[in-house]
Amino acid sequence: MNNLKRCAIHTITTKAWDLPTACAKYAEAGVPALGVWRQWLEGRPLAESRKLLDDHGLTAVSLVRGGFFTSPSAEKRQAAIDENRRCLDEAAAIGAGQVVLVCGADPAVPLPEARKHITEGIASLIPHAAGAGVKLAIEPLHPMYADCRSAVNTIGQSTDIIDEVGAEWVGIAVDAYHVWWDPNLEREIKRAGQRICGFHVCDWLTPTTDFLNDRGLMGEGCIDLPGLRRMVEGTGFDGPIEVEIFSDRLWKQDPDQYLGDIIAAYLKHV
Amino acid sequence: MNNLKRCAIHTITTKAWDLPTACAKYAEAGVPALGVWRQWLEGRPLAESRKLLDDHGLTAVSLVRGGFFTSPSAEKRQAAIDENRRCLDEAAAIGAGQVVLVCGADPAVPLPEARKHITEGIASLIPHAAGAGVKLAIEPLHPMYADCRSAVNTIGQSTDIIDEVGAEWVGIAVDAYHVWWDPNLEREIKRAGQRICGFHVCDWLTPTTDFLNDRGLMGEGCIDLPGLRRMVEGTGFDGPIEVEIFSDRLWKQDPDQYLGDIIAAYLKHV
Repeated sequence: MNNLKRCAIHTITTKAWDLPTACAKYAEAGVPALGVWRQWLEGRPLAESRKLLDDHGLTAVSLVRGGFFTSPSAEKRQAAIDENRRCLDEAAAIGAGQVVLVCGADPAVPLPEARKHITEGIASLIPHAAGAGVKLAIEPLHPMYADCRSAVNTIGQSTDIIDEVGAEWVGIAVDAYHVWWDPNLEREIKRAGQRICGFHVCDWLTPTTDFLNDRGLMGEGCIDLPGLRRMVEGTGFDGPIEVEIFSDRLWKQDPDQYLGDIIAAYLKHV
Repeated sequence: MNNLKRCAIHTITTKAWDLPTACAKYAEAGVPALGVWRQWLEGRPLAESRKLLDDHGLTAVSLVRGGFFTSPSAEKRQAAIDENRRCLDEAAAIGAGQVVLVCGADPAVPLPEARKHITEGIASLIPHAAGAGVKLAIEPLHPMYADCRSAVNTIGQSTDIIDEVGAEWVGIAVDAYHVWWDPNLEREIKRAGQRICGFHVCDWLTPTTDFLNDRGLMGEGCIDLPGLRRMVEGTGFDGPIEVEIFSDRLWKQDPDQYLGDIIAAYLKHV
């Protein structure tokens, strides 16, 4: 029987709630951890956000999102690296062990070059990550985002990048939505092994009607989440399982009811 | 300098035109070949369609689309195989050397099982393909179609299927739209080698606003088509290059003007 011990929810999932509300609601529901989107830290000192988490007995699993390393402009690439340093510091301040990287893509930058920007960007951040004690978690994004969100699109490719830059402060966040289709999924999860430091869940709807905000609640779609979980846990991963759902449809629901649905779906389908 | 000698257009691209009109217009514009969608053969004997092509000096490169091997119902899977036999016969009747396979996917069928249905379906059709003298061209589809259109999503996976079933009557149709994002693109095209029997072009728009019908004209998007062409031709491929565009936006244009734009885009960006 599944339970909530490893359940975490990304603040974006319950977008209607600010951080104080999300903390109160998650804690009340018995969800022990969360993924914090950076926007949820705005408007108050980091120490105050940290205190909010602590007062509710909540753990920040991840700070979302860093990355965005790709640009035709060297100046913008440097600005992105600087921003990632701030992001790592914020993560450290709220006790999050990892920053999730949306690595970046730009239709004006050919993919091989974009991938070079990403590898170089990550490599250059490793000393800062080590100093902050925070991992850089590469999240391979679905190939439908290869034009403008991420040129890193498979677990295998993430493993290759880590093999190049070193694994001590760089890991992989496996998001079911982005990787479920991969014909090499089982093999590449095995190869990634202990590089896997995060596991995100939601579901893929048929039909999907929006490129960004039409994800499904676990069990609503066609992803074999228990199968994927077995593969990920086969590597030794026993960390939090993060519910990350973008959905115009679900965001319209009453948020308390929706939190109940998330928990029921997590218990039944993950 | 590029020319039209290897240019082919899929009848769906100029959707406003029936087969007689498309034949007349393509021939007049100097386009020597076409990809025939099966709907364009309806309503007249196959011999008459063949005569239309011959009278205009046009070659049918491909018949589009066979496949759809995946279903939870064994009866439906058998029906699909029977339909593919008819499709192979139609291709032979109009002189098309290949049937393009949209291999099929179904949200109710787990991907590993779907992929088994596909491999078995293709294998079972090989004797009929040999008898018809028509190749089965596996077209790996973009991973965003893995839920309900095709569980074959990469060139590498297509090569693996062919290694399993045999290469004499089975090949790969490489469509830029479906494969451009692949981090292993160069390596997998090399490995596919002479299995590649078709090459389709269009472009990926940013943003893409529809999952099916928002493809771009070559040069409108971010795909490195000359780079992809070099990779494909590096395998020895010297066949027709098929323009296959689904676009609500472009379908609204005046079709004569649009054909001119297609040709200009082909000459400049492929």
